[in-house]
Amino acid sequence: MTLNGALTLSPQEVADMKRKYLALFEPSSVAIVGASESPLKWGFRILYNTLAGGYKGALYAVNPKHTEIVGVDCYPSLSELPTVVDLALIVLPPPLVPGAMRECAECGVRAVIVITAGFGELDDPAAEAAQDEIVRIADEAGMLVVGPNCAGVASPDPHSLYSGMIYRHPKGGGMSLVSQSGNVGMTTLTWAQLHQVGIARFVSSGNEAATQCEDYLQFFAHDSRTKAVLAYIEGTRDGRHLFRTIKHVAAQKPVVVVKGGRSEAGQKAAASHTGSLATRTVLFESACHQAGATVVDDIYQAMELTSAFVSQPLPRGRRVVVVSEGGGWGVIGADACIEAGLDVIDLPGGVLRELDDVLPGWWSRGNPIDLVAGNDRTLMSRAVEAVLKSPQVDAVMVLGIGYICSRSERLRDSDEAERLGLKRLIEMATKVEMHDAERIAGLIDLYGKPIIVASDTVMIAYGPAPNEAVAEMERLGVYAYASPVNAAKTLARMAERYEYLQGRPRGAG
Amino acid sequence: MTLNGALTLSPQEVADMKRKYLALFEPSSVAIVGASESPLKWGFRILYNTLAGGYKGALYAVNPKHTEIVGVDCYPSLSELPTVVDLALIVLPPPLVPGAMRECAECGVRAVIVITAGFGELDDPAAEAAQDEIVRIADEAGMLVVGPNCAGVASPDPHSLYSGMIYRHPKGGGMSLVSQSGNVGMTTLTWAQLHQVGIARFVSSGNEAATQCEDYLQFFAHDSRTKAVLAYIEGTRDGRHLFRTIKHVAAQKPVVVVKGGRSEAGQKAAASHTGSLATRTVLFESACHQAGATVVDDIYQAMELTSAFVSQPLPRGRRVVVVSEGGGWGVIGADACIEAGLDVIDLPGGVLRELDDVLPGWWSRGNPIDLVAGNDRTLMSRAVEAVLKSPQVDAVMVLGIGYICSRSERLRDSDEAERLGLKRLIEMATKVEMHDAERIAGLIDLYGKPIIVASDTVMIAYGPAPNEAVAEMERLGVYAYASPVNAAKTLARMAERYEYLQGRPRGAG
Repeated sequence: MTLNGALTLSPQEVADMKRKYLALFEPSSVAIVGASESPLKWGFRILYNTLAGGYKGALYAVNPKHTEIVGVDCYPSLSELPTVVDLALIVLPPPLVPGAMRECAECGVRAVIVITAGFGELDDPAAEAAQDEIVRIADEAGMLVVGPNCAGVASPDPHSLYSGMIYRHPKGGGMSLVSQSGNVGMTTLTWAQLHQVGIARFVSSGNEAATQCEDYLQFFAHDSRTKAVLAYIEGTRDGRHLFRTIKHVAAQKPVVVVKGGRSEAGQKAAASHTGSLATRTVLFESACHQAGATVVDDIYQAMELTSAFVSQPLPRGRRVVVVSEGGGWGVIGADACIEAGLDVIDLPGGVLRELDDVLPGWWSRGNPIDLVAGNDRTLMSRAVEAVLKSPQVDAVMVLGIGYICSRSERLRDSDEAERLGLKRLIEMATKVEMHDAERIAGLIDLYGKPIIVASDTVMIAYGPAPNEAVAEMERLGVYAYASPVNAAKTLARMAERYEYLQGRPRGAG
Repeated sequence: MTLNGALTLSPQEVADMKRKYLALFEPSSVAIVGASESPLKWGFRILYNTLAGGYKGALYAVNPKHTEIVGVDCYPSLSELPTVVDLALIVLPPPLVPGAMRECAECGVRAVIVITAGFGELDDPAAEAAQDEIVRIADEAGMLVVGPNCAGVASPDPHSLYSGMIYRHPKGGGMSLVSQSGNVGMTTLTWAQLHQVGIARFVSSGNEAATQCEDYLQFFAHDSRTKAVLAYIEGTRDGRHLFRTIKHVAAQKPVVVVKGGRSEAGQKAAASHTGSLATRTVLFESACHQAGATVVDDIYQAMELTSAFVSQPLPRGRRVVVVSEGGGWGVIGADACIEAGLDVIDLPGGVLRELDDVLPGWWSRGNPIDLVAGNDRTLMSRAVEAVLKSPQVDAVMVLGIGYICSRSERLRDSDEAERLGLKRLIEMATKVEMHDAERIAGLIDLYGKPIIVASDTVMIAYGPAPNEAVAEMERLGVYAYASPVNAAKTLARMAERYEYLQGRPRGAG
């Protein structure tokens, strides 16, 4: 830990921190304190969500009025549980929260999530005092406390933990997220589930009374499941500490930051919503950047980038070739790459010669490569490979995939298609396109270079008749963009990360 | 037609033009010349697509080898058809195209679409000469010719015409499109179908040998079905003529332009793809802007804006209130509005008082209005109405809709939900949310002000379990954005259009 200005932690500190946070992310047992039988109450939903998420540990409900809720054993108090739970979620009305916290501390519960709102985010001295009380209890007991006023936690591996207000279940993977907004956090989980992107850890940090964004980031830096980090940040109490923390993480893993409350109106809203302090946006973003994070304006683009950091190798330069199934999309793709700061290079001689063997005689011999609307669905992967293997190419943008699968959908169920024998044709063509998609995805590992895919067929990829080619690409870890514009931005930011690491060697953190 | 610099047309010219273009967009009869029985050939697909689109006029196939294809009567030549068709689509190999064109002219066919590629877009004098021949034949006969090297035409009303390579079927409506790229055009139709956005006319202009983008735009200006226009333009032969045409259209109807080939790499690709000439991007875009068009970088955003022009009133100013179901999205929404150039105003006193009656006591009394996660699903429409009716508010941004509908999906089919009696609760809550969505959509007309909606639930709106609330909003003409960022951009561009019209009175064209 010699990186100038970055936070440093001793091996003992790291070990202690890991132990502490694993109680939150990998608890063997969970209690929902304030569980309810009424489906209209959060006390019901939070228990139900944990159950529906498939939690593999021991799950208990706590409520003196019941002995069982939704099939889960219910106890009058924490002290009467058959075991000391690792993690407790508190969903009681605000006045009952400090008492429950004390009970957690007395029992030896290791981590607590206070879901309940109505504390520091209100402009009310009594509510603020109650929040201070929560912090005091946590500090005295050395207990990890998340929230209050938060949405919960998720860690698909190893125990299938999706607990709190969380009702999406993305699969396990390498992306870890901390969000100062519960509902922005839910947006990220929804996106991840839809696009088959794997999550390592997710935490909604709420009011951050006792545990701040920085603390989660530190854990992510040392967590072996975490390969890349995304933080949605509305404010911080100690900018210098935040930037030092980011520098510490970014030296080891990619960090993507979305700053909520960039405008004055947004800052005011952030202040009333989680009680966070306003920060000067330009300074904030430039400090993040200097610390090695990538700052992104839009939460969806941030998800796209973070997932690319997990699933794709970094490009070792900005030299891009665009391979397109259609002329117009090729034009748009080339524009997008240039505007994102990438180089749409002239095709190297060797690539030209190889493509002359693969493509029809009238191909345009330029970059973007227009494959010309044709029937040969193996052209794409052959063209991509011819380009990707060139030492003068750092990355390939593939435009258009899933055309056959999405065109077929309308034929599949028609009588006419049956009568004309189109069904067999469709099946064959679909198979060929699926195989081509798989081959393209396989080239990433083979050549250790990124391939960025965009197609308008993703619009209907998840429609009533799912587009198998797009779903298959995403299953294989290759996210399919709707538009080349975002695809190019991601690629340029990945190149930036590579350049950052070249300036500061990877191991320095 | 006194607008300085704008194109002018006499009433007779307008009448002649309408007659000419209605043969293309509203033909009573269509022939596919070069129809094929082989599903692998475009000659088959184009006939099949026209049929699958539900074309209501008389449809014929032309091919000497068959008497019937896919149930459509097939004739050896155009001259042997039982009628003179209004529109012929030619899908023959390049050498046969001029002959077929001559036959069309001799028979008195009014409009021709040459789908076939292999003409002016190739760097080949013979191919260019063949394209000149096409133009000569068209000019001599006074025949409208679209293409060559194009994807086709669509006009849902009145005859359900979707002909050419077109296999998406958006409903009828007020948006008209001309695209110099067939595959970008297909992207727009896919988007329109998915989001229930109505189309008046669509044409893929291809190489524009005889009929240019400008000609279609002129027709759109005087076409009563067209309420707003979108043009995807890669190049023009006569910039001055294009800008005068845009000025002519924009004085009457909103015009949105996407310029493909903004970068040098993109321009080179555009040149090889439709043979269009390179243009200086900055000059091009600023000339479009001066002519009254809105220039947008991204084709999806262009669709969002054009559809908003059709379905929403223009805001009479930039004063926006954000109403959000979640804190973080409110923050992001406020940022997005400010960054797009809108005013996130302080809530007027009257609005504050009215909202105090509607919202729970602890509401934040600021803009964005955070409704606080609650169970009362009528709050949204009541809050939106309280805001929208204020004379000090020009538009409302609504964030978050479809949460109940999308949350319910996982409960709907579970045994537990059945056992717990949740099904009835879900049904009721879904109904309440649907009703709230309908009420919000109804407020647009009631107050003559735009409401822009964004929600992360649109991500799964078209998933395996469709999100009814989002689908219902879109059926009612209110597009649901995935992100407040694009929503704010649309609203700001609508305000710009209002300002443009204020400077130059609406009737001037």
